[in-house]
Order: sequence, then structure tokens, then C-alpha cells
Amino acid sequence: MSEFLTLLSPQEALKRWLNALPEVEPEGEEISTLEALGRVTAEPIRAPEPMPLFPRSTVDGYAVRAADTFGASDSLPAYLTLVGEIGMGRAPEFTLQPGQAALIYTGGMLPEGADAVVMLEHTQTTMPGEIEVLRPVGVGENVLKVGEDVQIEDEVIPAGVRLRPPEIGGLMGLGITKLRVVKKPRVGIVSSGDEVIPPEQPLRPGQVRDINSYSLSALVEVEGGLPQRYGIVPDREDALREVIGRALEENDMIIVSAGSSIGTRDLTARVINEMGLPGVLVHGINIRPGKPTILAVCNGKPILGLSGNPVSALVVAQIFLPPVLEHLLGLTLKRPRARLQACLTLNVPSQAGREDYVPVRLIESAKGLLAEPIFYKSNLIFSLVRADGLLRIPADATGLASGAEVEVWLL
Amino acid sequence: MSEFLTLLSPQEALKRWLNALPEVEPEGEEISTLEALGRVTAEPIRAPEPMPLFPRSTVDGYAVRAADTFGASDSLPAYLTLVGEIGMGRAPEFTLQPGQAALIYTGGMLPEGADAVVMLEHTQTTMPGEIEVLRPVGVGENVLKVGEDVQIEDEVIPAGVRLRPPEIGGLMGLGITKLRVVKKPRVGIVSSGDEVIPPEQPLRPGQVRDINSYSLSALVEVEGGLPQRYGIVPDREDALREVIGRALEENDMIIVSAGSSIGTRDLTARVINEMGLPGVLVHGINIRPGKPTILAVCNGKPILGLSGNPVSALVVAQIFLPPVLEHLLGLTLKRPRARLQACLTLNVPSQAGREDYVPVRLIESAKGLLAEPIFYKSNLIFSLVRADGLLRIPADATGLASGAEVEVWLL
Repeated sequence: MSEFLTLLSPQEALKRWLNALPEVEPEGEEISTLEALGRVTAEPIRAPEPMPLFPRSTVDGYAVRAADTFGASDSLPAYLTLVGEIGMGRAPEFTLQPGQAALIYTGGMLPEGADAVVMLEHTQTTMPGEIEVLRPVGVGENVLKVGEDVQIEDEVIPAGVRLRPPEIGGLMGLGITKLRVVKKPRVGIVSSGDEVIPPEQPLRPGQVRDINSYSLSALVEVEGGLPQRYGIVPDREDALREVIGRALEENDMIIVSAGSSIGTRDLTARVINEMGLPGVLVHGINIRPGKPTILAVCNGKPILGLSGNPVSALVVAQIFLPPVLEHLLGLTLKRPRARLQACLTLNVPSQAGREDYVPVRLIESAKGLLAEPIFYKSNLIFSLVRADGLLRIPADATGLASGAEVEVWLL
Repeated sequence: MSEFLTLLSPQEALKRWLNALPEVEPEGEEISTLEALGRVTAEPIRAPEPMPLFPRSTVDGYAVRAADTFGASDSLPAYLTLVGEIGMGRAPEFTLQPGQAALIYTGGMLPEGADAVVMLEHTQTTMPGEIEVLRPVGVGENVLKVGEDVQIEDEVIPAGVRLRPPEIGGLMGLGITKLRVVKKPRVGIVSSGDEVIPPEQPLRPGQVRDINSYSLSALVEVEGGLPQRYGIVPDREDALREVIGRALEENDMIIVSAGSSIGTRDLTARVINEMGLPGVLVHGINIRPGKPTILAVCNGKPILGLSGNPVSALVVAQIFLPPVLEHLLGLTLKRPRARLQACLTLNVPSQAGREDYVPVRLIESAKGLLAEPIFYKSNLIFSLVRADGLLRIPADATGLASGAEVEVWLL
């Protein structure tokens, strides 16, 4: 384990990791739809009733029998008897007979017998109790049919869908005020390093504060997991083994951010490898930053081992955490992730065969979005603070030229 | 007010609205950095100390005086006396003298006197207590300087910046465990309509459940506001006036989603216009869906009046809510919003002069992302549930052709 045995591409490494994970049957919990934004459905949701429940007018006008308006025109209007006005929120108390019309508002319920609505602006009134229809309407015109949005028993949201504002509204519209969502996967976060101290302590020379536990917790939150921090573990095999073992027991996956020296990396890989089968699957990825990344599966649970360098840790987590959390969440509808097209402002060199991620600042310009690469070192966290997103340089490129059209993932 | 006096473009309408808003001095509150993800800084944040606090090695190797390695090569190594090993997390207890070297690990603190680090792989050991350096290093090589990430008193995060995972990590790294963020703007949400009932009630013919209060609340949450729902108000002037007045009093802005008939729209506009100066600024926008949108400012607070149609309400809110919330939050760093490039799969007609938003499904394909337009009516909320994003057809286009490269905003 002291050498990087193979250097896989990030895509191959990810595939090997996900393939080693068991199929999940995510555990569900019932919550109020009011609290469900961002959560993932644990079971398919079916419509308990059609929507709309009754034929509704989509305009202000007159409910009519379409046949009564055939051939109507400005010069030869159809004359209909006005039999009433349909109040909002109530079923009309009458049936529309041939030759009759009833005033109706947008969203109002069509009376029995009516099959279309004539828009107000296509009618005129000259005599009380009578309207003149100046244009014909077809059957169903200006009417929402019963079940036109959803039919009763339709699967309106499958299992494994992350809920956005439209879903929250749609569920409430169907009277579904509670639902079963997938429990947030618990993600244990372990930081190690004899030089690392908690943020609230004063620094002594030689010490640095823990950054990774917090930036990674925040990312876990953004991606729909529940971060559980296990503090800072000294770089001793027994201490690491105890904490990693406990964190693995208590969570659905763990992230270990270890020191950056070769010794601590090897120690971390060795301890992770003892945690269960199949153990460490990938140690070393052809990516910059993040070469020493460890991907493991132990007793069915994924483990992500990251460098202690904060930029490297966060960039690699941005690449590997979302797909594994989607797996743990049982996400079936994987919507495309947001990425922006921008025009590179500088040449960016890169080593062929290696995939590079470069922090960029995005600048709106008259010619479109510009991506300005940010000089960074993998231990300077504020180089990411200055960035809007990450630019990916594919492995087959030896860099990108100024002016190139590039894709940027937002941080 | 009974007619759309002017039909502005969405851009002009937005500009007119924002220009009528007073400059904000957003109220701040102190919170724990642990809770600050997604919040906006209320004041600039300065580094209380440099980061790193001491010169750190970026590799495993030997701390040296660079001058001692000048001219070193495989055939003519520089011989240095090994004086010790630098433990992680501690200040070295010695000063490095000329001709000396000390073993150091990645992240370790350079001893006084050392000004560079030679990588382990560029050295060899043949005699105990002595190392051979095979390549020269320059001053500062493989060393992070004090303050290389941030200098003491640097403004590391300006006021008005939304905090992401890198900022959370960076703040903790500086020992900043509390900070002042902008209080979440309170957004009052009023739904009106005699036909609208709360979701938990059984539907009677003619009634529909409230969708907009919930889809809009969810959007407010996503955008960093605090939604406050005021329930459903009957379409009566006195009732509307009372609830809108109270909501405006108790919030930083309000959204009113009113019925869709001409009568209720006019009623809403009239009541909003009474709430304070300058009143209704825009009533009717050249956009589909969402033509009857109302933009108002009353007593310094923005009011967004939306159609009762749930698709129309949510699409228009997606356009107008984010910029006004950014204003209320005092956001100074407006990062570009995520938008995806995709290839349209069908012709989409549109009326010239009007800006159209069309829900689309995004499909990953070998040729890149495809955008498939979804047939919708502005009252069918599940047409948005089926969509990944919105496609904008500019006002000067009479539609877009199949195969066109388009921009899609994620829902």
C-alpha cells in the first residue's frame, strides 16, 4: 500500500467504487410536506384524486354548449339566454340547457350540460338576459378537463426523486400533506493529524486549525446528507482504528481527511483496509488536486479518504461525494448538475493523462461569461473562497488555451 | 388600473422595481459559523491572524538552507548534517545552522534558519547522521510562507457574500467560530381566491387546494428568505386590505397570489396600490406565462403580485424573486446563476415581442444535453414537476428551431 499501485482516472475510480456498493433499500420516514423541500421520495406518490376535480374555465366568459355557437360571427351572432352567474368555489346549482349561457370566471366550475367557454371579449350584451356570441367555440375550448393535470391513481412522483418547489406545490394541491422520504444518510467525518486543533483553540506554532471537518460537513449538508463530526484523531494507528471503526458503525458512510505526509496517508489506508471487505479499492487517482484519494467499501459502506490539504479535500469531495450520496439516497431521477459555459481568459497548462480541476472566477461580460483561472495551492483554502467554480481539464488535453469555450461547475 | 397600461419587458419591469427600492442596511445577527451555510455576511470579515501562522513544508523531505544546496547534483551531492526530525504540531526546538538539515513532513514547521525544503526523493542517506542532497533548491522552495493564504487583517470575505462550503472551512481555519450574518428577509405570502381551500381540507366541487402558498414558500426558502404564510383570503376588498396590510407591516416584502379572473386581478392591484407610495409600478409584463404580474413598492417594501395559476406564479417568481431577495439581503457578490446549454429537440413557436418561458426536460445524450419542451398550461402544476428547467425564448424571436443551442435555467 505504500505506493500508488494504479492510477485510475476519476471516472474509472468512481465506477469501481459505486459498483462495489450493495443495492440500497433506503430507510424512509414520514414527514410533513412542509418540511420536505430537498428531501427524496421513499416511495412512489400516486394521486388520490384527479386534478382538477371538475371541469374548470381557463378564461373569464360564458359557459355554453359548443354546438349552440357553431357558425357564430360578428355579422350573425348566436343569441343565448343568460341563466346565471357561477360563483367561485361552488358547484353551479343548475344544468345548462340548449340555447343557454352562464357567466363564468377563470377557475370557475362548468355547469352540467356546458362543454365550452366563450371568452368575454367574443361576446356582447345588448338585451338584459341575453348574450350575443360573435365567434364559435369547439367542444372543450377554454376548459380544463377533469384530470387534465393528473388522473386519479397516476404516479405523480416516482420513488427516488428530490423535491423542489414545484413538487411541494403539486403535493399540497393533491392534499398530500405528509409523505415518506428517505432518511438523510449519516456521513461520519473524521479528521486526523497531530498538528490539527479545533477552531476554537488558540494556535501554537506548528499547529493549524481544522478546516476540513467543517467544509466537508457543509458540502454533505448541501448534498442532502447528515454530517456527523468525530473531531480530530492523532496520527496513531490505535486511535485512528478506534475512531474510524466507531464512525463506520454509526453512519451510512464516512469521510476521512488525513494528514498529507506519505506516512499518514499509508497509515490511513492501512487502517481503512482493516475495516471490512472488500476494503480499499482505489488508492491514488489520476487527478490534480487529489492524487492520494482513497476509495473503499467496508461491510457495504463507502469510505472516502481525502488528503488533509483543504483545497484538495474539498475539490475531490465535490467530485466523489454527490454520486455516492445519490446512491445512498436511492435517487432514481438524477437531474443534470448545473454547469456554465464560459470563455477562458488565460492559457492553463496541464499534464497530459491527468485530469485537472482549476478554480476559476466567473465574470459577466458583453461577450458572455468569462472564466479567469485562479492561482492556487492545494493547501490555500482561500483560493477556493475567491473562486466561483471549478474548471475541468480533461486527461487527454495538455492544457487549455486562452479563448477556449469551457464548462465550469459552480462551487 | 383595469387595463394593462403598459407592457414592459421583464428586464425593464425588474429595473423599474429595483430602482424604486430604498438602499437597504440589512439587519445583522450573530450566529455560529457552523450554522452559517447559505447565509450572507453582514460585515466584512478580516483575518485575526495570518494563515499559515508559520512557514510550513508542502512536501516530505529535509528542511535546509537553500544556499547549502547550490550546485548539488547526482554526481556531486551536497552533504548536510542531519540534526533532527521535526514533529508535527510543534515548533522545532533548534535553529538550523549552515551545513545542517532536519527531517520534516508535509505540513511541518520549518525551524529558524531554514528557508527551503528538499524533497525526500531528491536525497539519499548513506551515512547515519548525514544526508546527500542530489538537486539544489531555491529560497522558499516547497515552503508555504507565513500569510501566503491570508495576511493578518486581510479582508477575507467582504460584506454581502453568501457562504458556501469553502467559506465555512476558511472561517474555521482562522478560528472565526461566530460571525454576523444578515437576518433572513421575511417574506409574507398571501393567497386569495374564494375557490381556494387549505390542502388538508377535503375538496368540494368548485374548490381547489392552495398550491401557490407552498410552492412559493419553498422557493423563498431556496433563495434565502424566511417565508411567512398568511393563509387564504376571500376575494373581498376589506379582507384583502386587512391581510395585505398586516403582512406588509410584519415582513420585509410580500407576495400576493391572487385569482386569475380580471376582476380579482384588478381588485388585488387596487388594494396593493393603497398600501403606500409609490404603489403599483408595473401591472402587466410582456411575458408568457405571467402577463398579469404586478410589481409594487409600498413604504419602501417590495410587493410581487402573481397570477393564481400555479405554473405562472412559480415561473414568474423564479424570475423576479431572486433579484429582489438579493437586494434585501444586501448581496454584493452576485455569482452567476447556474444555466445549462442544451440542444432543443423540437420547434417551439413564440410570439415576437413577448418573452416566453417554456418548461423543458433535459436528457443526457452522446451528443450532449438535449432540451425537450414540455407542453404546459399555466394552471397545470405537474407540467413543472415533469420539467428540469425553463427555457427562455427572447422577445425578438418568433420561436426557436429544433436543433438550436439554448440556455436552460434549472428549476
